[in-house]
Amino acid sequence: MTSHAYLIGGGPGAVDLITVRGLRALQTADVILVDHLAPDVIELLGPDSAAHIIDVSKLPYGKQVAQEKINELIVEHARAGRIVARLKGGDPYVFGRGFEELQACRAAGVECTVIPGVTSAFSVPATAGVPVTHRGATHAVTVVSGHLPPGHPKSLVNWAALAHSGATLSVIMGVKNAPEIAAALLKAGKPADTPAVIIQEGTLSGQRSFSTTLSQLGETMHAQQISAPAVYVIGTVAGLSA
Amino acid sequence: MTSHAYLIGGGPGAVDLITVRGLRALQTADVILVDHLAPDVIELLGPDSAAHIIDVSKLPYGKQVAQEKINELIVEHARAGRIVARLKGGDPYVFGRGFEELQACRAAGVECTVIPGVTSAFSVPATAGVPVTHRGATHAVTVVSGHLPPGHPKSLVNWAALAHSGATLSVIMGVKNAPEIAAALLKAGKPADTPAVIIQEGTLSGQRSFSTTLSQLGETMHAQQISAPAVYVIGTVAGLSA
Repeated sequence: MTSHAYLIGGGPGAVDLITVRGLRALQTADVILVDHLAPDVIELLGPDSAAHIIDVSKLPYGKQVAQEKINELIVEHARAGRIVARLKGGDPYVFGRGFEELQACRAAGVECTVIPGVTSAFSVPATAGVPVTHRGATHAVTVVSGHLPPGHPKSLVNWAALAHSGATLSVIMGVKNAPEIAAALLKAGKPADTPAVIIQEGTLSGQRSFSTTLSQLGETMHAQQISAPAVYVIGTVAGLSA
Repeated sequence: MTSHAYLIGGGPGAVDLITVRGLRALQTADVILVDHLAPDVIELLGPDSAAHIIDVSKLPYGKQVAQEKINELIVEHARAGRIVARLKGGDPYVFGRGFEELQACRAAGVECTVIPGVTSAFSVPATAGVPVTHRGATHAVTVVSGHLPPGHPKSLVNWAALAHSGATLSVIMGVKNAPEIAAALLKAGKPADTPAVIIQEGTLSGQRSFSTTLSQLGETMHAQQISAPAVYVIGTVAGLSA
């Protein structure tokens, strides 16, 4: 009996930005669990694929419980002797909760392989013309989740330190909290005219991007009616042009 | 006349961690410029490929001049009507100097497409079992170049701020300066027992990794005779196990 689980990073959205290893693993799968940020699995495998596809974003559960249900489904199908592919957007370990799924597999005695993916935090700016690092401009880049506002009791991010680190900031899951994030960075002394760029639906057909500044970030987000998925980059590199 | 330049992220080293888009572009190329961190192009294309392969790591130039020579070669071959692929390790824009090559192409009127790759800074830890982010542990990760020691006049990194940011640190090109980097983080108040992991030749057959702590980082590096290419991760996530 061959059973195995693969946690696959699907990349930022465009189907051909999955890795060769990721695509091959997907092609061997009996069951594929996808979420709403993963690339289109039908387009990847073709309509004649015999794999059983489960869209876990449509599970009838609350957010917290959904992750537990996903873990259960991976384990359940693998234990039934199936090859399971869990296809995630971006990279499984960059805010992808992939490690929780790996832990669930290991705890259940299910063999599990992680296949890294192209992270949205770097590739979405790249396809919009923005390099997250550039010689003479920055020697570091921080990917930070914006899903909690600065100062939130559960936040683990020191935004003031990030304002001073010299690293480019690439913020994901931060549309809603953009005004508070910009305010926290400004309050810590990051210059108001620091270049910023917002990219919505990066690498997909609906991609659009807007150049702005740190002090105008929230306003631009509002004026352009940006909605998730979107990435924004704050730092000198956002003002470079080729 | 079809001429075009592709700047392709080859991923961390293993040939199947290139993207599908990157591999396809490579297959169309007449001329391929590779460096020593790029995946093995013969293995990617097969020995019968008709592409002209140039190993730019063997160019007889000093470091600074080499980049200018690479820019020239890309432009020269593209202008001669060839499809040029520049295959780089990791991602072109994560300390890959890809933007300089893009600028050189644009300045010369050569059409150029950037194809993102899987960055070593996240994928190498992943294949060694370390997630760069994990719920409840960290909401940010900083990729930082360690090629200049802390306090160097040309350094653009505020290591003290990074010590306090709450972000996982993933250091690349930092083997030689590991003792100084650890010392700077400790001096800024980062706890001595912060978990760390060092991974040499990640995703390749020679991969080996060592768990240590921030205060023991330099010593472990020395004792295990770590040499480049290597990545090290500093933060709670380096101490997690599945």
